[in-house]
Amino acid sequence: VNVTILGAGAWGTALALVLHENGHTITLWDVDGQHLTELERARRNVRYLPDVELPRAWTIEPDWPRAVKASDCLVLAVPSEGFRQVAARLHDTRALLVSVTKGLEYETGLTMSRILAKCMNGAAIAALSGPSFALEVARSIPTAIVAASADEATGHAVQRLFHRPAFRVYRSTDVLGVELGGALKNIMAIAAGVGDGLGFGDNSKAALVTRAISEMRRLGVARGAQPETFAGLSGLGDLALTCFSRLSRNRELGERLGRGEKIAAIMASEHRLAEGYPTARAAHRLARQMGVSTQIIDETHAILYAGKDVRQALLDLLARESKAED
Amino acid sequence: VNVTILGAGAWGTALALVLHENGHTITLWDVDGQHLTELERARRNVRYLPDVELPRAWTIEPDWPRAVKASDCLVLAVPSEGFRQVAARLHDTRALLVSVTKGLEYETGLTMSRILAKCMNGAAIAALSGPSFALEVARSIPTAIVAASADEATGHAVQRLFHRPAFRVYRSTDVLGVELGGALKNIMAIAAGVGDGLGFGDNSKAALVTRAISEMRRLGVARGAQPETFAGLSGLGDLALTCFSRLSRNRELGERLGRGEKIAAIMASEHRLAEGYPTARAAHRLARQMGVSTQIIDETHAILYAGKDVRQALLDLLARESKAED
Repeated sequence: VNVTILGAGAWGTALALVLHENGHTITLWDVDGQHLTELERARRNVRYLPDVELPRAWTIEPDWPRAVKASDCLVLAVPSEGFRQVAARLHDTRALLVSVTKGLEYETGLTMSRILAKCMNGAAIAALSGPSFALEVARSIPTAIVAASADEATGHAVQRLFHRPAFRVYRSTDVLGVELGGALKNIMAIAAGVGDGLGFGDNSKAALVTRAISEMRRLGVARGAQPETFAGLSGLGDLALTCFSRLSRNRELGERLGRGEKIAAIMASEHRLAEGYPTARAAHRLARQMGVSTQIIDETHAILYAGKDVRQALLDLLARESKAED
Repeated sequence: VNVTILGAGAWGTALALVLHENGHTITLWDVDGQHLTELERARRNVRYLPDVELPRAWTIEPDWPRAVKASDCLVLAVPSEGFRQVAARLHDTRALLVSVTKGLEYETGLTMSRILAKCMNGAAIAALSGPSFALEVARSIPTAIVAASADEATGHAVQRLFHRPAFRVYRSTDVLGVELGGALKNIMAIAAGVGDGLGFGDNSKAALVTRAISEMRRLGVARGAQPETFAGLSGLGDLALTCFSRLSRNRELGERLGRGEKIAAIMASEHRLAEGYPTARAAHRLARQMGVSTQIIDETHAILYAGKDVRQALLDLLARESKAED
């Protein structure tokens, strides 16, 4: 199968490795032509996934028409803020479309596969999400993930494409629940990281994770997702991973904030985007519009966008917890 | 309030500190008189919680009748394997009884509060469980925990005794669910640790944690617990903590097994008991008796009690997962 990966970040590159090992023909495209030139020259993704050598067989293709033309499957691995632009260029494709981007669009509150559905007319669309650091996937460390599609046949097709002994793909038809789990947990990981930076320890992180999964479920169910999806790999599994693992970018962003760094300075120093940053803004807006109570999202949003003192935000979170459950 | 802590391990000592800070009068008893002598002399729990100084006001009391006589509240913090023996000595007490021990009795499959109930006649009984490393509690790092009692007034009484700004106590009436969460997660943490020792990484640990919470819920519900309890602090919260944190004894036991150490050698070298070890045996027996499918418990049991190769056990777990959900 001819697969084109749109977006040569860490996750796009790691998934290209999985697909390559499954015998598929890989084309890699990115909006940043200079990044592709570097990647072609080094045969490594020096910027985002430097440890792994890239197979010679891959086509590194900066030209959009050539990248997408002969493709049977397009994997969208671009940041959420550039997602609609890329999706809009795909309107006439007949390929299977797989979104692997975790985020929400600010203006609409839509998940990535819904943006795709709005841009296309009846294409086969799926989302892939679950607890999966790119670095571990690239090293063939055992990983389990969910392929979600409203259409069962599409879900099966994505499962067949990606499934490997060390990359186990399960299926779900609750696309919205799977995508919301992946998107919202990045916000929670920022809050967990703030706790780390402030020295709050693992007991309080475990308490935060417990509250976070209810908050995610509450917002998700209000939006139409299935509650049980949040107890699965793409909900609880991904949340626990992102909040507890050292490898998480979103947790790390929170940790730096907790230690006293300013968000503007962090953003200026990082070329890797923590998706929880834009998602916090979009989820906060969505929750307000829907009238859903989201305490962790609110406090994280206040830290990121309203300059709220990190310690005060976490103490307010504890106080509000107490009010809610005492 | 006069509180006697039975069991001067790390957890008993940390809870005594919480109760002391709340103004209660503390008596500390342990079956090991020599340990108490050391503790009295050093005014530190050198063996189990060395970093923290113990208040002068505490009574260190090796004499059983004097320790329990004037007590309004007895906190049982002894290992699960010695629990019934201690409980049996309490038959005529009028004090409030709080079990903080996480385990299952092998012969009966009973949780600790049920053993207490069998030994007493109508005493006020509660269990305290949740994500709470003793070391962090002793350092006043924010922690949230659950006080469970079938009797609402007893639950409130325990909440009032223990609740502090940095030690938030919530309530539940599902005692069985709260206790099973605390007991079973220790088995899961051993399995998670085996993965660490084998170099399986955080992606697969997140997948294991996701499966573990369903397995815990399945066994718990079959036994009469409420399913939603496993999504709370004493279920998911404690599970995530114990599987991901470096501080967990049970995870560490698994990690040593994963690196190739033998269980007999580990047991001989450790004076701190990992509760998951006896609990795996009891839970495995209970699940067989009840006809509940428990894949992670089964493989962990096989590693601990049947000398099964650790890598093979984890591969079998992955293969069985695939069969169950593909």
